[in-house]
Amino acid sequence: MAEKLPTREENYSEWYNQIAIKADLAEHSAVKGCMVIKPYGYAIWEKMQRALDDMFKATGHVNAYFPLLIPKSFLSKEASHVEGFAKECAVVTHYRLKTNDKGEIVVDENAKLEEELIVRPTSETIIWNSYKNWIQSYRDLPLLINQWANVVRWEMRPRLFLRTVEFLWQEGHTAHATADEAVTEAKKMLDVYTDFVENWMAIPVIKGVKTESERFAGAVETYCIEAMMQDGKALQTGTSHFLGQNFAKAFDVKFADKEGKLEYVWATSWGVSTRLMGALIMAHSDDSGLVLPPKLAPTQVVIVPIYKEATELETLTAVANTIKKSLELKGISVKYDDDDTQRPGWKFAEYELKGVPIRIALGARDLKNGTVEIARRDTKEKINSPLEGIAETVENTLQLIQKNLYERALAFRQSHTCEVNTLAEFKEKIEQGFVSAHWDGTAETELKIKEETKATIRCIPLNNTQEKGKCIYTGKPSAQRVIFAKAY
Amino acid sequence: MAEKLPTREENYSEWYNQIAIKADLAEHSAVKGCMVIKPYGYAIWEKMQRALDDMFKATGHVNAYFPLLIPKSFLSKEASHVEGFAKECAVVTHYRLKTNDKGEIVVDENAKLEEELIVRPTSETIIWNSYKNWIQSYRDLPLLINQWANVVRWEMRPRLFLRTVEFLWQEGHTAHATADEAVTEAKKMLDVYTDFVENWMAIPVIKGVKTESERFAGAVETYCIEAMMQDGKALQTGTSHFLGQNFAKAFDVKFADKEGKLEYVWATSWGVSTRLMGALIMAHSDDSGLVLPPKLAPTQVVIVPIYKEATELETLTAVANTIKKSLELKGISVKYDDDDTQRPGWKFAEYELKGVPIRIALGARDLKNGTVEIARRDTKEKINSPLEGIAETVENTLQLIQKNLYERALAFRQSHTCEVNTLAEFKEKIEQGFVSAHWDGTAETELKIKEETKATIRCIPLNNTQEKGKCIYTGKPSAQRVIFAKAY
Repeated sequence: MAEKLPTREENYSEWYNQIAIKADLAEHSAVKGCMVIKPYGYAIWEKMQRALDDMFKATGHVNAYFPLLIPKSFLSKEASHVEGFAKECAVVTHYRLKTNDKGEIVVDENAKLEEELIVRPTSETIIWNSYKNWIQSYRDLPLLINQWANVVRWEMRPRLFLRTVEFLWQEGHTAHATADEAVTEAKKMLDVYTDFVENWMAIPVIKGVKTESERFAGAVETYCIEAMMQDGKALQTGTSHFLGQNFAKAFDVKFADKEGKLEYVWATSWGVSTRLMGALIMAHSDDSGLVLPPKLAPTQVVIVPIYKEATELETLTAVANTIKKSLELKGISVKYDDDDTQRPGWKFAEYELKGVPIRIALGARDLKNGTVEIARRDTKEKINSPLEGIAETVENTLQLIQKNLYERALAFRQSHTCEVNTLAEFKEKIEQGFVSAHWDGTAETELKIKEETKATIRCIPLNNTQEKGKCIYTGKPSAQRVIFAKAY
Repeated sequence: MAEKLPTREENYSEWYNQIAIKADLAEHSAVKGCMVIKPYGYAIWEKMQRALDDMFKATGHVNAYFPLLIPKSFLSKEASHVEGFAKECAVVTHYRLKTNDKGEIVVDENAKLEEELIVRPTSETIIWNSYKNWIQSYRDLPLLINQWANVVRWEMRPRLFLRTVEFLWQEGHTAHATADEAVTEAKKMLDVYTDFVENWMAIPVIKGVKTESERFAGAVETYCIEAMMQDGKALQTGTSHFLGQNFAKAFDVKFADKEGKLEYVWATSWGVSTRLMGALIMAHSDDSGLVLPPKLAPTQVVIVPIYKEATELETLTAVANTIKKSLELKGISVKYDDDDTQRPGWKFAEYELKGVPIRIALGARDLKNGTVEIARRDTKEKINSPLEGIAETVENTLQLIQKNLYERALAFRQSHTCEVNTLAEFKEKIEQGFVSAHWDGTAETELKIKEETKATIRCIPLNNTQEKGKCIYTGKPSAQRVIFAKAY
């Protein structure tokens, strides 16, 4: 608490790191690239999980659990999948340690696995290997399964939440009788993610499809939602894949249709991860610390008593408890902080750093006037509010904060998005945010633009306006604009 | 569904395996010893998780998440811990695969880790390595943290749920200023587990402490609850450890007390796992399949329409939906199975196999009389019940089933527990269940009894009667009886 955060202006990247650590969300662990998610950070993730899980169930999905360890040979079964995932991953080669003659613990070379096991980087292969036994007939379809799990991908440049060797996520894996049904499912889950990110995380997103070079390894089509962070960079906040029959063919999963004809099954997969925590931090926070949307804040309201003499505290505590009870009746989570070893100023800064949406300061003078001071974390506005009807005031204010965060983020994105028509203009504007530009549709041009500007095509927006133009790089004809940005 | 289960009498072990598989709870995966938890099994586990998590939070605990991978050297830091856990575990030695010149995917020998990483078999070491930075003063204590996670222990003789290479669990890890406080915490969590296992799982347990040889590797005292399965064997359904200062010393975790004096921190850890699913199956099920306590049943009531002509179905469906709605208003989960491709008899057997607590059969004739047939899964009793007030009847019946399962299991345990005073008697009775016998208190005798009878001391009951006697094996004096059994 002693040292101040760097401002976003001074050092955006360090500002992010310090909020993650100082707001007690996460920390680096002894294992390079692996993080510890601390209780305050985990409480936010639990709220995200609960909301998403309810949405998955409301759309007909059930949870299951598949093994952490995947035989190495499974990864190779789907040709493009192995290219994308068999590279940077944790490989289990032995199943026993022993004490050597120097008394040290060493790997027991007699306990070498016949086939190495991979710590799952994603579970398509192990899941489709099970689905082979679960699916025989059209009656077994659709199969709508989700898994909450940890996965490992060996990241060389880890950052808390954004890129970690191990992360937590959910991965949906569904099986369908027709391509249409699978595409509908993939889009439906993109809508679920959109609903969650916009209405719970208060972050506006652009829905789109990825270009071929940005597609998930093994997918026919990758749908995504892209959000803008406060440095103008894009962060993918959800992804949903139409996998065609690729995994069904790789694992030989066929079903008998109503006429008894055998066909390969159609598939989707979709996921969001603890990366969303990174998006949450970067989308709303300010130079004083974390700013949380009320729907995901573990503590929505903190009450701080302001007093000089210890004798005043008793009255304040009685009032605070009445307020607390009335808020809790409305399902609002409240903390009353009467710790007498810290001064109010210290507490104010601490709860600002931690992003508690509303702070109520309770002083003897206010009480005489029948008011309390309500401070909003998002705008830092303070208002004196009558004690009468305080629960309704707080409830309304929480809704206003939730709405304001979304609108603020949307306004920011709008003011940092523009259309450009030349490469020179592109290079200038891409430093500020999203750029909508014409592209000739080739992976070659996409790569050249990336090499020259570090920007990638984030997505081709769904329901995109079909507007003819010329590629900013090659001048070749283009049927529509796409969204470019630098990305996390 | 076609083949019948073996009876418990015929082959208890195979009866268990087949229920786990045929009731769609779990299956073996392609990775030896790892299971797939199928949606129906996972739905039960989710109910367990939710109930336990609520209890942990009600007792002041918060969740967090620590890394899956643990540096090999960490395991060696606590001397007895390494003995217990560094042996059969999954070892990550490399972080990359590559394609060799034959086009095969192989381990990249250039990507060998400097220090091997162990897939966590339990997390004391990685957690106490973090606690070192989290704890400075008595103000930081107690630290009450729980983690929901997967762990890996290399089992050579795996069985679904009971012993699997990977399993899911929760592990609580708390830190305290005094030994007393830590012991109180360890006992409190044993009470939480007792409450859960008895009141949710409907399985009576004996609370006790483990003997030294059965103690957790690194603990000063291990508290446990032991339940009896229908073959008379014991299954440990929860364990809570007082770790003394062992891990604090191993990881150098000290706190400054109010006088500023530095002291090592006191610790506990406690856990339950998907093993509880095995206990749940074995405690209540019968020769027709799974029997579930209503509080943990994903579907508590199934309604099956009985009709000859398709035209009857419409009326039955209307009534079924009314019943369903009235039950759901009471928070009861209901499935209406109007699948017309299966006959009622098939459905009855299927829901019996899956352990749905109540089946309501809805026939045209009953409806004329204003009644429905309610069948209880636990007793297989059928009663004709008035349609009027059906929601209350079902609600009460679910409570009766929950109570009956507990009482039935308790009566079974009581009739399979006895006191013995000679080794001959011990050898005879130990085949039937729990045996309460005198023991001289030495690990040597305990081991000899184990070698001769395959029975172990399950626990020394808490608040045990202090009754002097002679050890059944050595004849040496003993201050109290202890509980012996064969165990899972």
